[in-house]
Amino acid sequence: MTRVLTVDAACAAAHAAAPAVAASDLPTRAAWLEAMADALDAARDDLVPIAVEESRLGVDRLTGEVGRMTGQLRLMAQVVREGSFLGLVLDQALPDATPPRPDLRRMNVPLGPVAVFSASNFPFAFATIGGDTAASLAAGCPAVVKPNPGHPRLADAVMAIGQDALAAAGAPAGMLTMVSHDLQAGIDLVVDDRIEAVAFTGSQRGGLALARLAAERPRPIPFFGELGSVNPVFVTADAARERGAAIAEGWVASFTLGAGQFCTKPGLLVAPRDESLRAAAQSAAQGVGGQGMLTEAIRETYLRGLSERLESTGVEVLAGGGWDAATDTVTPTLVSVSIDAVLADPALLEECFGPTSILVEYTDEKQMLDLAEALPGLLSAGVHGQGGESIIAELLPRLVAHAGRVLWNGWPTGVAVTWSMHHGGPFPATTAAATTSVGAAAVNRFLRPVTWQGMPQEILPVPLRDGNPWGVPRRVDGVLEI
Amino acid sequence: MTRVLTVDAACAAAHAAAPAVAASDLPTRAAWLEAMADALDAARDDLVPIAVEESRLGVDRLTGEVGRMTGQLRLMAQVVREGSFLGLVLDQALPDATPPRPDLRRMNVPLGPVAVFSASNFPFAFATIGGDTAASLAAGCPAVVKPNPGHPRLADAVMAIGQDALAAAGAPAGMLTMVSHDLQAGIDLVVDDRIEAVAFTGSQRGGLALARLAAERPRPIPFFGELGSVNPVFVTADAARERGAAIAEGWVASFTLGAGQFCTKPGLLVAPRDESLRAAAQSAAQGVGGQGMLTEAIRETYLRGLSERLESTGVEVLAGGGWDAATDTVTPTLVSVSIDAVLADPALLEECFGPTSILVEYTDEKQMLDLAEALPGLLSAGVHGQGGESIIAELLPRLVAHAGRVLWNGWPTGVAVTWSMHHGGPFPATTAAATTSVGAAAVNRFLRPVTWQGMPQEILPVPLRDGNPWGVPRRVDGVLEI
Repeated sequence: MTRVLTVDAACAAAHAAAPAVAASDLPTRAAWLEAMADALDAARDDLVPIAVEESRLGVDRLTGEVGRMTGQLRLMAQVVREGSFLGLVLDQALPDATPPRPDLRRMNVPLGPVAVFSASNFPFAFATIGGDTAASLAAGCPAVVKPNPGHPRLADAVMAIGQDALAAAGAPAGMLTMVSHDLQAGIDLVVDDRIEAVAFTGSQRGGLALARLAAERPRPIPFFGELGSVNPVFVTADAARERGAAIAEGWVASFTLGAGQFCTKPGLLVAPRDESLRAAAQSAAQGVGGQGMLTEAIRETYLRGLSERLESTGVEVLAGGGWDAATDTVTPTLVSVSIDAVLADPALLEECFGPTSILVEYTDEKQMLDLAEALPGLLSAGVHGQGGESIIAELLPRLVAHAGRVLWNGWPTGVAVTWSMHHGGPFPATTAAATTSVGAAAVNRFLRPVTWQGMPQEILPVPLRDGNPWGVPRRVDGVLEI
Repeated sequence: MTRVLTVDAACAAAHAAAPAVAASDLPTRAAWLEAMADALDAARDDLVPIAVEESRLGVDRLTGEVGRMTGQLRLMAQVVREGSFLGLVLDQALPDATPPRPDLRRMNVPLGPVAVFSASNFPFAFATIGGDTAASLAAGCPAVVKPNPGHPRLADAVMAIGQDALAAAGAPAGMLTMVSHDLQAGIDLVVDDRIEAVAFTGSQRGGLALARLAAERPRPIPFFGELGSVNPVFVTADAARERGAAIAEGWVASFTLGAGQFCTKPGLLVAPRDESLRAAAQSAAQGVGGQGMLTEAIRETYLRGLSERLESTGVEVLAGGGWDAATDTVTPTLVSVSIDAVLADPALLEECFGPTSILVEYTDEKQMLDLAEALPGLLSAGVHGQGGESIIAELLPRLVAHAGRVLWNGWPTGVAVTWSMHHGGPFPATTAAATTSVGAAAVNRFLRPVTWQGMPQEILPVPLRDGNPWGVPRRVDGVLEI
């Protein structure tokens, strides 16, 4: 049995459910999220084999990803219960002020139905009941999921479990629906007047096309697109000298993880020209075997991007990989270029989704800073250093200026789901640099504030009434109260 | 002496100042804002006459508006000192978790130079050193002001005082600059690559044209446009019966205030068909004398909009005003239409900036709810009721669904500058429904989060270091700490 609705039916159901979802109190809404988490955890052993078959990612990775998916739902349940996301701010009336000030109370309200586009590379965590769906429901917004064509059976199975868990927990029908994975369904969804926001994780090309549709509606809606990034990692001279080989090995492990199919893959290592670092990277890359890619389309896009890259002036192949048709696997391609070559060809700063990365070699720290200055918007940027190098004070602000996350002596793959995570960044890494698609703050995307002025107690929404009936953090007359 | 720079010079100065402005500590930044407030208050008696001459608004109103302008700067100084706007969120490392969790610390960082477009109708509060400039500087972003062509001499005078106060307080040169009031300067500013965000208050037509430019840059930037709204006020049957005449008089006073040149002007009163209410409105409107409008262009747009409106089917003129060429003043135009006519012609739900408003008469509460459902995005919507009417529970959610502020027994003109104010709303009232241009939260528009991962203490920004060196509210491991 398929769970797929037409776009019209899904939007009608979401629209009808929206008031009830928005009106749910916090413990009830949190319990809905946890009911889904429990049911999905319980079904893990049934779900993982489907995911393995459809995604060619490994059992261990996918088993862990189920935990990530349910962990996201549980973090969102925590966020809902804690209640800060409501953004309660109250100012009492000052009738004797000039001009007199009325009683004013602000709260965030849900936007309404959200279209959620599933990513291909995280069949659980960024897919049908992934982070965007969890955040949408946590905000009090019905989610209409556009599944990824890469895992239709998994989408059906996950959605069945989630929807049944919601129904059993008494959640409004229509709170979580799914449309076809066809491109056209996605287009129809974005332009449907009942959709109030879009959350998207995927390619820059697809994301920007949908973002344009959202902006060109008679009534434009916010489009939260996470479009990937080159995620450069910079190595200081001291770090290269002390542990260049270890850094090279860590880098290769990170950029070949999951066949390099991460939006946080480190696509550049910017390091001093250093033979041992280079040799270690080469040897590590040569030691990585063939891996299946998610879909034929992704593989083709990857191979096309790779061959363009190999034609760029000054690119030297350190470990030559490619596609083996017999096993339908790819092996990593590691290339090196001089920093002059990268500065001359900014196309090398674009993401190439798959198991390839570029060693950018510098001999002059000034040039390394020039490259940091020339970076596009990034999800992340990293530094490997020993600490105490004077260059760090110059490099780090340039990375902060371009990235949503900056890392020290780490690798960008692996995005912890916490209160403090920011998985976002300036354009073109995302279409909304102030927002995150991972972590507690992801819920904020689907809310907007409303201020109630001079409203009698009995008409005010309950959380805004005197005495803090919901017991959530509020700011009153400018002072935070926990 | 003019303070006007070329767009290139202003952007260069702002770009050069950005790191120093961003790096300022909170008390220093707050003191800069207060230095401007003090200097502008001290110059009030010199500034008001220029404003009177250029805007034709009254001395009392403009004197009060100086206080509003400096009050905004002082509220922003408070917001800066309080520090919650930094959005500090810390999660400690969990090395034994699966996968291990690194130390993660998030903080909001300034976007960089902001282009601020001055409005015509608040020569102080929404102009050169108005709310958007205050919020931009509070966020740590240099402001490049595009002044309004309606008050060039006032813009020069205000900017001179503000810039001199900043210089005397030791603020970085280039933190606050001004370009020409020409349309072309505004266009050049929005597309300049050194500008990172735009704040605009003005007409829907102008705002949407600039928003498109911002979106079509090679590197799109956020555009925060406040584009006005029709601000309907609904009257219940009980309220009309009990105090229809008083409501009508309050309405006329609100929509004719400042010759109706407020984005919060109540452009519709949706009331039961009631002769005493209608007669009171008519008499009140006829009693309002001629008022000068801000500029010739605004007057012409107003008169054109008004004549289109008068041609709409079913519009009945209750108080006929218009332009008197001899005195160059306009008197209010009050019209009434049936609710059927409004539902048939949605153009009547568009803002007409100037001293006119529409009495929409209903006989059927169901139709009144239909109208509430059909509303476009609004800055505000109001209800006049007695309390206890069952219709309120049906009406209010419809208003919340369309508006950024909902009022009870009040008028939308007059937007208090407080922690809890939200002056925003769904499209087309604004281009960014989650943001406000008035109140403490206005600062948030010019910030984006960054997460520092695994970063040693000495490299972390000071406010993120252990022990809360700046003593501002933070969330640590999910728990708010004040």
